[in-house]
Amino acid sequence: MREINYLLGYKNMKIVQDNEMFKFSLDSVLLANFVTLNKNVKNIFDIGTGNAPIPLMLTRLTNAKITGVEIQSEVYDMALESVKINNLSNQIELINDDINNYVKNTQNKKYDVITCNPPYFKISEGCNVNVSEYKKIARHELFLDIDRLCKASRSLLKTNGRLAIVHRPERLLEIISAMQKNNIEPKKLQFVYPKHDAEANMILIEGTLNGNPGLKVLDSIYVYEGNEYSSQIKKLLEDE
Amino acid sequence: MREINYLLGYKNMKIVQDNEMFKFSLDSVLLANFVTLNKNVKNIFDIGTGNAPIPLMLTRLTNAKITGVEIQSEVYDMALESVKINNLSNQIELINDDINNYVKNTQNKKYDVITCNPPYFKISEGCNVNVSEYKKIARHELFLDIDRLCKASRSLLKTNGRLAIVHRPERLLEIISAMQKNNIEPKKLQFVYPKHDAEANMILIEGTLNGNPGLKVLDSIYVYEGNEYSSQIKKLLEDE
Repeated sequence: MREINYLLGYKNMKIVQDNEMFKFSLDSVLLANFVTLNKNVKNIFDIGTGNAPIPLMLTRLTNAKITGVEIQSEVYDMALESVKINNLSNQIELINDDINNYVKNTQNKKYDVITCNPPYFKISEGCNVNVSEYKKIARHELFLDIDRLCKASRSLLKTNGRLAIVHRPERLLEIISAMQKNNIEPKKLQFVYPKHDAEANMILIEGTLNGNPGLKVLDSIYVYEGNEYSSQIKKLLEDE
Repeated sequence: MREINYLLGYKNMKIVQDNEMFKFSLDSVLLANFVTLNKNVKNIFDIGTGNAPIPLMLTRLTNAKITGVEIQSEVYDMALESVKINNLSNQIELINDDINNYVKNTQNKKYDVITCNPPYFKISEGCNVNVSEYKKIARHELFLDIDRLCKASRSLLKTNGRLAIVHRPERLLEIISAMQKNNIEPKKLQFVYPKHDAEANMILIEGTLNGNPGLKVLDSIYVYEGNEYSSQIKKLLEDE
């Protein structure tokens, strides 16, 4: 069922969600806060934007124009509605397309920054389980995998533009390799742990097109302290 | 000046050191505690063993036979003395050789585990500064670099044997690439931070020869809490 919720941690920003499709999660919050933004960033492209949590959150951090592309028309519709009810149509543009088509048909438009919270799982990983088509596409690499993401980013980024991704640690080596194959040099890396004394369950990685080597590993993020969100996470979720 | 010190955190283990050459540091302690050991590990090879801190510490964690190879004869002499004063000649064997020669002349001997705290710096990085030849060789990639280390390890490891390295985060991507080029699949990764809210300044990485992909990222280590060693480090340094 489709409903309007407050955007996690943003009391005066709303997002349209649907339980049967998917809800956005902490991943997007972390990515929006991880990506390097500065006043030279004029336009941002969010690949597989879903119901647009990343564009919505980014409007709090930058005045750059943000374009989100989403393959699923029903999800795209929710994103449109979210942008409208937040009066952000002047800053966020949404496109209902497959990123692979979009790249083919878009030769000249280049971006300063690309963000992506891509499907995490290979097609082979439990893809036949009984979930909706919406969830399958959002979670499994049916239309977007790491290689295609990096290839698309290479063609859409300005020189020295940045690609920032949130993903799972077990895919880190593939991401590094796909970035490097596409001349996107990994520059910034951060690991997210559910709690102390556990393995990381999320990674944040940013690379620069034609960048020089030199990787920085930022301080780790721990999501929970006991049964509560950690102070690191609470800070991210504080409404400004 | 050469002196006999207690091995960091090990009250009843001594190590011979020389200020003008180098002293072993926390890196070796971290690596000795990071490397995966189990009862199937029968022999360990420590490349660039210096004054043998890693072999000495490993004797507390395993009954495996440990071989250390050190290129510099004066440093090798100190290592020999350290092994002798700790009565560990039955468990630790030392070889005074260049690892590249050793590999060439050793076709049949294979190891379960290789450890290495290699030189961290490229030859170009401040190599002409006024330090002793000993320190230059220990710190700069004059005789041992990441590629040669991984190539040597490939030839010295049994199938499914493990290579564990401590290094700097800015070299992580090179290490991953050199490991993979030599069929050593990175399986375990850990980041060390001097303190919270700082960038990582050390990495620990372990790979398996002919291993399957699947990387785990262990909880981060923070060396200091305020002006003191953190409880994580104190625990490592506790004498058993």
